[in-house]
Amino acid sequence: MNIKVIAFDADDTLWVNEPFFQETEKKFYQLMEDYLPAHSVAKELFKIEIANLDLYGYGIKAYILSMIEAALHISEKTISVEAIERILQYGKEMLDKPIELLDGVEDALKALHGKYKLVVATKGDLKDQHKKLHESGLGHYFHHIEVMSDKQKIDYSKMLQRLEVDPSEFYMIGNSLKSDVLPVLEIGGHACHIPFHTTWAHEQIDHTIEHPNFRQMDTITQLLPLLLS
Amino acid sequence: MNIKVIAFDADDTLWVNEPFFQETEKKFYQLMEDYLPAHSVAKELFKIEIANLDLYGYGIKAYILSMIEAALHISEKTISVEAIERILQYGKEMLDKPIELLDGVEDALKALHGKYKLVVATKGDLKDQHKKLHESGLGHYFHHIEVMSDKQKIDYSKMLQRLEVDPSEFYMIGNSLKSDVLPVLEIGGHACHIPFHTTWAHEQIDHTIEHPNFRQMDTITQLLPLLLS
Repeated sequence: MNIKVIAFDADDTLWVNEPFFQETEKKFYQLMEDYLPAHSVAKELFKIEIANLDLYGYGIKAYILSMIEAALHISEKTISVEAIERILQYGKEMLDKPIELLDGVEDALKALHGKYKLVVATKGDLKDQHKKLHESGLGHYFHHIEVMSDKQKIDYSKMLQRLEVDPSEFYMIGNSLKSDVLPVLEIGGHACHIPFHTTWAHEQIDHTIEHPNFRQMDTITQLLPLLLS
Repeated sequence: MNIKVIAFDADDTLWVNEPFFQETEKKFYQLMEDYLPAHSVAKELFKIEIANLDLYGYGIKAYILSMIEAALHISEKTISVEAIERILQYGKEMLDKPIELLDGVEDALKALHGKYKLVVATKGDLKDQHKKLHESGLGHYFHHIEVMSDKQKIDYSKMLQRLEVDPSEFYMIGNSLKSDVLPVLEIGGHACHIPFHTTWAHEQIDHTIEHPNFRQMDTITQLLPLLLS
């Protein structure tokens, strides 16, 4: 391996994220319990999120707008405006959550810093991701943050072009096989999957990967010997 | 001048934007006319937008979330959920607007392409700006798009560091004195102001600029002789 750039996914790779969405979603199920059981609310919300993905993109603001739309739809417009206000409040609470770093992250960055160009490569909301990186205190380990509008092959190719590195010189680390691993392997890069205990349905895939450039680790710490050898 | 990188603001510099916000805002005034006169609705909405700027950032999704909050606040939670649905719809219509390029933009890019590294440097929503650049058909003129979480001096400095150019080699073109011109001049770059006929209140400043690195032009076409000489 002749790696020059290591990119880290952010949410659920550097810090906790998905549990906050799930926590909020539970509150939403309660808010809607007069209309539908939780699993049906979940289904309707997910359907609306996916339908809006092309217009809204990823992130908390998109999520909250879809949640308001779902509340109107599920209640057949009989929901109270107080409930709408609660949903807005959920969004602000999510945006204001303190950062919880995952185990081993800071030590790993310390060990890799100076040996590689380190970047954050994340989907989600630009403002929100910049804010989180700032508050994480990890900013100085990274050359910069790439907030990507999507994580398909084309998005990685464009990023590598901009970084002026060959795919074979690129290592991606993240918790999503679909977004952080498969497209990177397909364009000739290296990738390590570090699963997080919970993953958004949209990011889930149901097959195993065998590829010479692929690793799966339980924590970021386990990957260090490979990258520091 | 030894310019290497020319950056273009996007909204109201490459294509029409602010009029769509103003058009939407007029619909919102009508929606709220039972509660407050238009100028007071405008004031309340602006206050909420500014209060949310730190959490929400810029862009249409932030605008729509603030508009829903303003509707609840102005109506003292007596607004109908149908009105909330209308506001969600305003947002989708804005996100779905076809791109209207400003006069001379494409010819200017054609003339400058290959002679400088051209980038788009814009605030706003990541997903939305990528989508607009794609739909504009201008994407191939640009090396890449920088969606900035803000346009303060520090944001420009970070961008130039990433681009590995000196401020003296950087030329910024945009319609906002506050965001596109002043911070760039202050860090030692060059800037051209091309006013658009309408500017968001938050972007307005009320003094004139005199600086050797500053130009003001009516259209982008007028700037070409300077950059091509």
